Amino acid sequence: MITARGDAGRRLVDVAPEYRVTRVLEVPDPASVSAGDFAAVCYPHADAAPLVAELIDRGARVLDVSADHRLHDAALYPPVYGFAHPRPDLLAEAVYGLPERHREDIRGARLVANPGCFPEASILALLPLAGELADVVIDSKSGVSGAGRTPTATVHFSHAADNVSAYKVYAHRHRPEIEQELGVDVTFTPHLVPVDRGLLSTCYARLTGETPHIDDLRERYRAFYAGHPFVEVVEEPPGMRAVQHTNYAQVCPMVDPRGGRITAFGVIDNIGKGAAGQAVQNLNLMAGLPETEGLL
Amino acid sequence: MITARGDAGRRLVDVAPEYRVTRVLEVPDPASVSAGDFAAVCYPHADAAPLVAELIDRGARVLDVSADHRLHDAALYPPVYGFAHPRPDLLAEAVYGLPERHREDIRGARLVANPGCFPEASILALLPLAGELADVVIDSKSGVSGAGRTPTATVHFSHAADNVSAYKVYAHRHRPEIEQELGVDVTFTPHLVPVDRGLLSTCYARLTGETPHIDDLRERYRAFYAGHPFVEVVEEPPGMRAVQHTNYAQVCPMVDPRGGRITAFGVIDNIGKGAAGQAVQNLNLMAGLPETEGLL
Amino acid sequence: MITARGDAGRRLVDVAPEYRVTRVLEVPDPASVSAGDFAAVCYPHADAAPLVAELIDRGARVLDVSADHRLHDAALYPPVYGFAHPRPDLLAEAVYGLPERHREDIRGARLVANPGCFPEASILALLPLAGELADVVIDSKSGVSGAGRTPTATVHFSHAADNVSAYKVYAHRHRPEIEQELGVDVTFTPHLVPVDRGLLSTCYARLTGETPHIDDLRERYRAFYAGHPFVEVVEEPPGMRAVQHTNYAQVCPMVDPRGGRITAFGVIDNIGKGAAGQAVQNLNLMAGLPETEGLL
Amino acid sequence: MITARGDAGRRLVDVAPEYRVTRVLEVPDPASVSAGDFAAVCYPHADAAPLVAELIDRGARVLDVSADHRLHDAALYPPVYGFAHPRPDLLAEAVYGLPERHREDIRGARLVANPGCFPEASILALLPLAGELADVVIDSKSGVSGAGRTPTATVHFSHAADNVSAYKVYAHRHRPEIEQELGVDVTFTPHLVPVDRGLLSTCYARLTGETPHIDDLRERYRAFYAGHPFVEVVEEPPGMRAVQHTNYAQVCPMVDPRGGRITAFGVIDNIGKGAAGQAVQNLNLMAGLPETEGLL
Repeated sequence: MITARGDAGRRLVDVAPEYRVTRVLEVPDPASVSAGDFAAVCYPHADAAPLVAELIDRGARVLDVSADHRLHDAALYPPVYGFAHPRPDLLAEAVYGLPERHREDIRGARLVANPGCFPEASILALLPLAGELADVVIDSKSGVSGAGRTPTATVHFSHAADNVSAYKVYAHRHRPEIEQELGVDVTFTPHLVPVDRGLLSTCYARLTGETPHIDDLRERYRAFYAGHPFVEVVEEPPGMRAVQHTNYAQVCPMVDPRGGRITAFGVIDNIGKGAAGQAVQNLNLMAGLPETEGLL
Repeated sequence: MITARGDAGRRLVDVAPEYRVTRVLEVPDPASVSAGDFAAVCYPHADAAPLVAELIDRGARVLDVSADHRLHDAALYPPVYGFAHPRPDLLAEAVYGLPERHREDIRGARLVANPGCFPEASILALLPLAGELADVVIDSKSGVSGAGRTPTATVHFSHAADNVSAYKVYAHRHRPEIEQELGVDVTFTPHLVPVDRGLLSTCYARLTGETPHIDDLRERYRAFYAGHPFVEVVEEPPGMRAVQHTNYAQVCPMVDPRGGRITAFGVIDNIGKGAAGQAVQNLNLMAGLPETEGLL
Repeated sequence: MITARGDAGRRLVDVAPEYRVTRVLEVPDPASVSAGDFAAVCYPHADAAPLVAELIDRGARVLDVSADHRLHDAALYPPVYGFAHPRPDLLAEAVYGLPERHREDIRGARLVANPGCFPEASILALLPLAGELADVVIDSKSGVSGAGRTPTATVHFSHAADNVSAYKVYAHRHRPEIEQELGVDVTFTPHLVPVDRGLLSTCYARLTGETPHIDDLRERYRAFYAGHPFVEVVEEPPGMRAVQHTNYAQVCPMVDPRGGRITAFGVIDNIGKGAAGQAVQNLNLMAGLPETEGLL
Repeated sequence: MITARGDAGRRLVDVAPEYRVTRVLEVPDPASVSAGDFAAVCYPHADAAPLVAELIDRGARVLDVSADHRLHDAALYPPVYGFAHPRPDLLAEAVYGLPERHREDIRGARLVANPGCFPEASILALLPLAGELADVVIDSKSGVSGAGRTPTATVHFSHAADNVSAYKVYAHRHRPEIEQELGVDVTFTPHLVPVDRGLLSTCYARLTGETPHIDDLRERYRAFYAGHPFVEVVEEPPGMRAVQHTNYAQVCPMVDPRGGRITAFGVIDNIGKGAAGQAVQNLNLMAGLPETEGLL
């Protein structure tokens, strides 16, 4: 069953023609959900939390694509998202849906929180170094599809094309999510770039230990990501085209030959590994299906 | 004096930063206009007509950038623009503001109607052949700035980028304007292309007389446009880049070596020669200034 | 076996990373081909013909992706492609690889000629009306990937972005192919648009018989394309986004309410239905596989 | 006199049509240069140095647009540019052509070195803080025109469009230039973005002294840039569109409310303030003309 609020009664193909799915969108009805059912919730933040709670309470296993269960610390919701979280118990229980970090927990979870797009690329870029990171700066470049479907002055072609600019400097909601998973403070600056789909994070950091040789660093990344089917460790700074229309992420660590600092790149399709693809991967894990099922 | 309705009280630089003009936008006040003043009216169609009438009646000389005085036939306004024209006398008097066709009339006119962007490129492409044209097909490609500043689903970057499609097929309001000035029926299809500024019309026609040799045709165009400072006759199909950010138009006639049909290209910056640049050129003529004053 | 000339010895993934295929490209060796084998040839025109002939003579069944067997009339090769065709017998035998027109012949053919990208979109747009067409003008807009991988001034981002222009006016090699399949002379103008993948043909024509009502025309298209899995008849002018990264074509016929002329749109992904996707569809038919196998 | 090597004998309008300058490009002839003449040299690095030396020795005053006189330390030329500099005396004498830093020296200089595009945006973003900077990371995004006119795989539309990637990580030649002018080591990462003209540097730093309040920081920038006609201090992160087709730079300092780090943005048109516009500004100063002459 596929549901929608504003678009209920329309066929999916008329809302999103590229999927060629003619099924009619139904009105969401939590009462029709039974114990053991799976549900993916794609509501705006603050709206999602009550629905997720109801579904969980009815015995469903839920993937929340919104931001409402990504942060474990309930105290962050008022300042960051502007609402008091109704169910801190579910915040405590929810598993952050990054399989490269929490795969086993995702498999058995009742509630999985699908990551934000910026955190997805940024955390993957730095994850093999978690615990040793200091002085982290993350400079991210996002395609316009990350801004959502609502037409605004910012996403008007005559503004977004031929343009690059930063936004929400020091104030973007994805920062706490990155800090939670990497366990370190970060300076995070998102930029909008004239691309439809794609998100590149350029991550600068110092390591608390010895700075490794590039060969060792790369080997460490390869060892870390062995067995993770959707992360590719590459040797040249990756571009968005390498992952567009897929669920792949590419990561690339580099070491400053003058010493002191490392740079790690992470690139994803923000609609793929950064949203819907990651959601399918998580649902596959939750349901005991092959992790790559239905994904390119 | 620069006026605005929704933006009155703001500085122009805050509405359109690229012009770096700090003057404050004032509330329009027709009563402040005296005989002999010049006024340029950029209201939406139907809104412009009453204001233009009031300004003319106060003795001003008016350039109407809207569509409200482009068509001489009042009977066209209800079906094409959805309103009955309040002042057919002004429709009859208004000069169509294409200097390459009506320069002397523009100089002395009380009321000049600035052309639409599609007609500007299309008429210039075919004007040297007016009176001999038959079986005209005009296939136009417009940059997104031609769609206006209002954010809509159509101009969302994620829709407009990487995309080309036709719109308002057989139903675009600029067709009657082209037919009026060229004196012939046309089939006209506008397309939206992922470009900010630029408009290219590819015009197909047969000639009622002998089909000329390409050298003669080109020579005829050159002779026609000699003395017109903003039209360049070129030998290769022109691209939008040749005229962006200028008031130039480039036109290029070609002859089918198999006989029978000619193709003529016309390209402009839709914001330049297709709108604001053309407006300045018309105001220059009306005010007795050098025609090229203030224009690139 | 996947072969290459310049890139032999490299892994496919290093030449075209987006396919993630690690197999090594081998040196082409026609002698390794046996009777009953299938071969797809992607050589430049003039180079392909001798290789195709050798493969056919060895008993292989060949899909020629080049232009070397698209035209049945050998006399066209010198003026259009600049070489005398070495095997007019194969020209006579080759089936034009448009399943919507020649499906049954493709199934049993020894030699199938994969269509050009412009013909693919243009013929599909007009095919239900073949035999009744007159006065045809085809105005096509092609994404830059259609220009091939060789870097040139034309495909430099700083030239192709923010730009639209026509090229090879009255001189493009795809025109004779369109005329062969539709059985009528056409005026054809290709344009380059700032899109990576996508090709839209806007086709203008008169019908030799009565001009139909739009409902009847659309019904006729639907009946014609029923049973063709990759052609969708739509009611609004289609855009490139509807078919990008797929093997679908969308076609849309429209009738001028003032009478006399019809307009038909055809849109494809020039790399999908316009090249590689169409090739897979043809190979599926030749090999007796399901027509849609391996295609999105 | 305008000269060229490969294009000598052609009209400028045929090489760069957008300038509409019909003068014929002449063969460079240093012997025609007299004492007191001005010369702008736009040769590739290593080629420029001998020509500049000859012109200087003939008494000309030279603006070198190449990189050959930007670095004062001759020892940097072999590792960074791959050649031993022939005239360390001219390196010592050359003034770095950033008027916001060296205006008075530029006015009287015999030899001015026009800055690189990345340094231009990056230095302007941080210049008011020079002497107090530490731990500097500069993440730059450059439009494709910065890569030059030569067609390569990197600038092919089908590679550059819909894409962002870093290049020459830890190895770009503009880093030493930034370090020379700011007097501090920097980590510098250039990225290519799908924009024609525009360059944005996002600069992260700590200050050796107290971190200021944002109001004080902004005031300091405003005071610093008062009297510099082409630098605008803005309060929101600036986008490329604000400066395209102009000689303006916009800079925007921001302070992390959590303390410790500042972020400063600098944006220019890489062909304007980042190259040709800056060159005209420098020539104006050298020649005693108004600094803004001929510039938008």
